[in-house]
Amino acid sequence: MNPLRARCSGYIAASLDGFIARPDGSIDWLSMVERPGEDYGYKRFFDSIDTLLVGRKTYEVALGFGSWPYGGKRVVILAHRPRPSRHGEEFFAGDLAPLVERISAEGAKHVYVDGGSVLSQSLSAGVLDDLTVSLVPILLGAGVRLTQNVARDVRLQLVACRSFESGLVQLHYRAPGNGDRSPSRGLGNGQ
Amino acid sequence: MNPLRARCSGYIAASLDGFIARPDGSIDWLSMVERPGEDYGYKRFFDSIDTLLVGRKTYEVALGFGSWPYGGKRVVILAHRPRPSRHGEEFFAGDLAPLVERISAEGAKHVYVDGGSVLSQSLSAGVLDDLTVSLVPILLGAGVRLTQNVARDVRLQLVACRSFESGLVQLHYRAPGNGDRSPSRGLGNGQ
Repeated sequence: MNPLRARCSGYIAASLDGFIARPDGSIDWLSMVERPGEDYGYKRFFDSIDTLLVGRKTYEVALGFGSWPYGGKRVVILAHRPRPSRHGEEFFAGDLAPLVERISAEGAKHVYVDGGSVLSQSLSAGVLDDLTVSLVPILLGAGVRLTQNVARDVRLQLVACRSFESGLVQLHYRAPGNGDRSPSRGLGNGQ
Repeated sequence: MNPLRARCSGYIAASLDGFIARPDGSIDWLSMVERPGEDYGYKRFFDSIDTLLVGRKTYEVALGFGSWPYGGKRVVILAHRPRPSRHGEEFFAGDLAPLVERISAEGAKHVYVDGGSVLSQSLSAGVLDDLTVSLVPILLGAGVRLTQNVARDVRLQLVACRSFESGLVQLHYRAPGNGDRSPSRGLGNGQ
């Protein structure tokens, strides 16, 4: 991995059958693992990052929150069309690899790749360095998939695995990043 | 759960993104977790069951093996059309719940629901009692899904979680079975 490039991390919840949302985008089922005072390490992770790359859909959900959830961080929204910035967020359309290079040159050290679509783009572009998946003990049967049109196999290295009282299992993997991998085949059509 | 009904167990490997095979059905990627002398508990599980319910596709793969892999067990193949039995296997077309009742009455105590399609049918029919998923540290991006047209959410209870040197994480869940569940909505179209 290029030591000058910011580390890119994914941090996402999924059902046991690999869905991150229902077909209509809803994530109501996450409430089954909500416990008072338990955030499954999210705050610590969030404190460790300085920059977020956020997909358009995730951005729209965030805009609907009472308060802007990304305060104090640099936020780049991946969207085909820029919009008026409401909270200092920037807009970007294009390939992820050069974007990560640019924000690294501008000072980013640790980037949160937030949302299923951007996560898959980062896997296809080979820029993801690690991935934390919080596996919720439910089978949804249908929905928005954890990976979407990833162009090739991504072999991961298990770093840690922890189970919680709620039945949530948190898996932490190292992803190939821009290290030992074959060249990207670009964004294919998947299946 | 009806104490007279055989216990029905699923035991299956999946990629982290919820696929059990590539789009063409191949499972070559399982070799990444193969280790000499390590079967991840499969033999012990297989020894504990007396009956298998096998989907047509899984059956065809099994027929291609050098030797019949289900020796010493009662085997029922779920297929729309019966075929000549080669190894004493029976054929069945119909709903899973009455089949499980019938084989229970005929003496089955522990049934292995083998193959993705039959697993999903057993979830929809509410007859699955437990599920072991061996999560392989790979993202495939596309393929045959762990769940296929399951008609409703299936909430699971985590019983055990174990990680291996290879990066495989084996998750053991209790499924609602025919105990505390709402009536089946039958096989829907999913997404």
